[in-house]
Amino acid sequence: MARLVMKFGGTSVANIERIRNVARHVQREVEAGYQVAVVVSAMSGKTNELVGWCREAAEAVSSDPVYDQAEYDAVVASGEQVTAGLLALLLNKMGLKARSWQGWQIPMETSDAHGSARISAVPPDNLDAGFARGEIAVIAGFQGIHKESGRITTLGRGGSDTSAVAVAAAVKAERCDIYTDVDGVYTTDPRVVAKARKLDKVSFEEMLEMASLGSKVLQVRSVEIAMVHGVRTFVRSSFDDPANPTPGTLICDEEEIVEQQVVTGIAFSRDEAQITLRRVADKPGVAAAIFGPLADANINVDMIIQVVSDDSTTDMTFTVPAAEYERASAILHKAQNDIGFAAVQGATDVVKISAIGVGMRSHAGVAAKAFRALAEKGINIRAITTSEIKFSVLIDKDYTELAVRTLHSLYGLDKV
Amino acid sequence: MARLVMKFGGTSVANIERIRNVARHVQREVEAGYQVAVVVSAMSGKTNELVGWCREAAEAVSSDPVYDQAEYDAVVASGEQVTAGLLALLLNKMGLKARSWQGWQIPMETSDAHGSARISAVPPDNLDAGFARGEIAVIAGFQGIHKESGRITTLGRGGSDTSAVAVAAAVKAERCDIYTDVDGVYTTDPRVVAKARKLDKVSFEEMLEMASLGSKVLQVRSVEIAMVHGVRTFVRSSFDDPANPTPGTLICDEEEIVEQQVVTGIAFSRDEAQITLRRVADKPGVAAAIFGPLADANINVDMIIQVVSDDSTTDMTFTVPAAEYERASAILHKAQNDIGFAAVQGATDVVKISAIGVGMRSHAGVAAKAFRALAEKGINIRAITTSEIKFSVLIDKDYTELAVRTLHSLYGLDKV
Repeated sequence: MARLVMKFGGTSVANIERIRNVARHVQREVEAGYQVAVVVSAMSGKTNELVGWCREAAEAVSSDPVYDQAEYDAVVASGEQVTAGLLALLLNKMGLKARSWQGWQIPMETSDAHGSARISAVPPDNLDAGFARGEIAVIAGFQGIHKESGRITTLGRGGSDTSAVAVAAAVKAERCDIYTDVDGVYTTDPRVVAKARKLDKVSFEEMLEMASLGSKVLQVRSVEIAMVHGVRTFVRSSFDDPANPTPGTLICDEEEIVEQQVVTGIAFSRDEAQITLRRVADKPGVAAAIFGPLADANINVDMIIQVVSDDSTTDMTFTVPAAEYERASAILHKAQNDIGFAAVQGATDVVKISAIGVGMRSHAGVAAKAFRALAEKGINIRAITTSEIKFSVLIDKDYTELAVRTLHSLYGLDKV
Repeated sequence: MARLVMKFGGTSVANIERIRNVARHVQREVEAGYQVAVVVSAMSGKTNELVGWCREAAEAVSSDPVYDQAEYDAVVASGEQVTAGLLALLLNKMGLKARSWQGWQIPMETSDAHGSARISAVPPDNLDAGFARGEIAVIAGFQGIHKESGRITTLGRGGSDTSAVAVAAAVKAERCDIYTDVDGVYTTDPRVVAKARKLDKVSFEEMLEMASLGSKVLQVRSVEIAMVHGVRTFVRSSFDDPANPTPGTLICDEEEIVEQQVVTGIAFSRDEAQITLRRVADKPGVAAAIFGPLADANINVDMIIQVVSDDSTTDMTFTVPAAEYERASAILHKAQNDIGFAAVQGATDVVKISAIGVGMRSHAGVAAKAFRALAEKGINIRAITTSEIKFSVLIDKDYTELAVRTLHSLYGLDKV
């Protein structure tokens, strides 16, 4: 029997009425002949409540916000456990055989990086046995177990997508359906560009870039696992009529996509901050001196540009996540003597806009076209990065919508 | 190092501020040199919320209220898991080494009677290892695991008391402190009798009778386990100043109690209903015909009296829990032909009042004195049962307070 993994996020299971609706989607697929595993998130708002309690507990003792991540995981994982139990209860009540699975029961084995653990293995034996008993597996997403310590772990925000794709790979599912509050992957955010089009198909690599560059439809790690294991993954709407659903967007191998566009989508991320170090001594080892301390503090550095001046110093500009801006500035100030620079300058009113498309591999001048179009609109580019299938520009936040609309039209993505 | 188990109920952990206070109690005992295990309930109101969702999920499908108890357990057990994680997080933040334990992690092994499972074994190895690492064990009460199925179970309402005593027995704790919203065990409910006295000590057997007969201070099963394993158990207040707590009531072996009263306490239960079968054929096997079907339906029958008439029929009166009254009546009506009786009569406006004391063993006429005193107040007794260390009378509910006060004075229990 063919197997199917279905994943429903927090807004899709926000209350019992919506969980009832999820059960109808599950029923449809069971009746279509699938062995079904359903992965669920916590009910909308629950994770925030639980995280809030952890913070409050830590702050009851001291103002220092750092606290025990292993206990955080034990607390927060309970949210998915509740949804899984409720959905299994409801499915059983409908006469469908179902049982809930928590991360440790599967087991969904992970690293011990509590709060952002990585899945290391998903032995399929227990789930296989459940399928053999004719059970629907209702799986608590976002959570796992660190085998050596026997402790509960969580995968980080959005981790239920990753759980779903990992389960699909483990049980060799025909496909993995990610049900969300949007009906598929769009050429760009439809709230910003009214002419955004839903894509029927998008390649794993493009989706990976989109997720990394600001599209919030899927978690990056889930796309990585889907790509590595070749899991055909659909992004589709949980708010469709369960009796008459629309297909959504298929994420698949590049080869499956016949009519390939040069550019498939425009992504943007407002969570960026720019830092410039003025008059850095232009000598060997200076990059290590700058980026070493930031890496040690777990701060991701993204776009890096270096402008050499006449006086054998250089201006070094790079971006960090906006949430890490203050921390990064403080670290750099502290290391000023080691690095040797005149001043730190920064800006948080910036946005990173990216164009993604596997077609770029075979087409030259794709990015140059964009630089020209943006210049014509009077948009100044602060930084640029490119890779094989995407390019990104850093610009002033005020121009976000204009720039996204400009590139969306430029590459022929507008809905007709 | 001596070991101590501390248990805190739902009102004692109702919010972060109270959990902080619990942590102070724990800190005091750690500083006194104990290896501490803390057992916690769900935050007050949380279990009701979770149970409510289970009901709502079942009722979303059909009006039949029956649903999957294994999934109920998976959902409801999450409440204690959250409290345990939060308390461990808070203790760690205070610089005390602590970790949370869920039922399956210990493991707290139980039967598979989901919703009201019985503890079958508590292998101490994992907890011992934790103590050896210098950790405070913060244990989610009320929950366990059925080893064969690997599924989460719950022990039924009030089950955290039982978890605590079972852990105390397993780790050979010096004592088990049950922190509640009252400061000890009283001669009777202080809300009914202003002159009720707090007991310094009460024997296991008396406490067992009190719990069975309506006192809500401790769960019956917890007292059974404490008695069998000789766990010295204190009932004490969680609202005391952690720096200056009062000792509460010790539940211990009879031998430890030097000045033994004839009667130690007066308990009462309003959750009783009386059923009378009129003109039952007085023949062998009739009791089995009546009580067999009730037992099959899991309905507990308590006080039974039989009055034989002249015409070789008998009137059979007994009590059942008030919540089961309708179901019991329906079952008896259905079995009318098998049993052979003229009519079913019933009353739910009754109360069972009990006097408990190990001193009854060596004193005759204790109950007779009560019958006389109640008669003098014009209180009609509907049924009587006695055992070695207690007697109970069934009377009209209206006379509850009067009867309890009368017996409380009669046996010299009033506070002076």
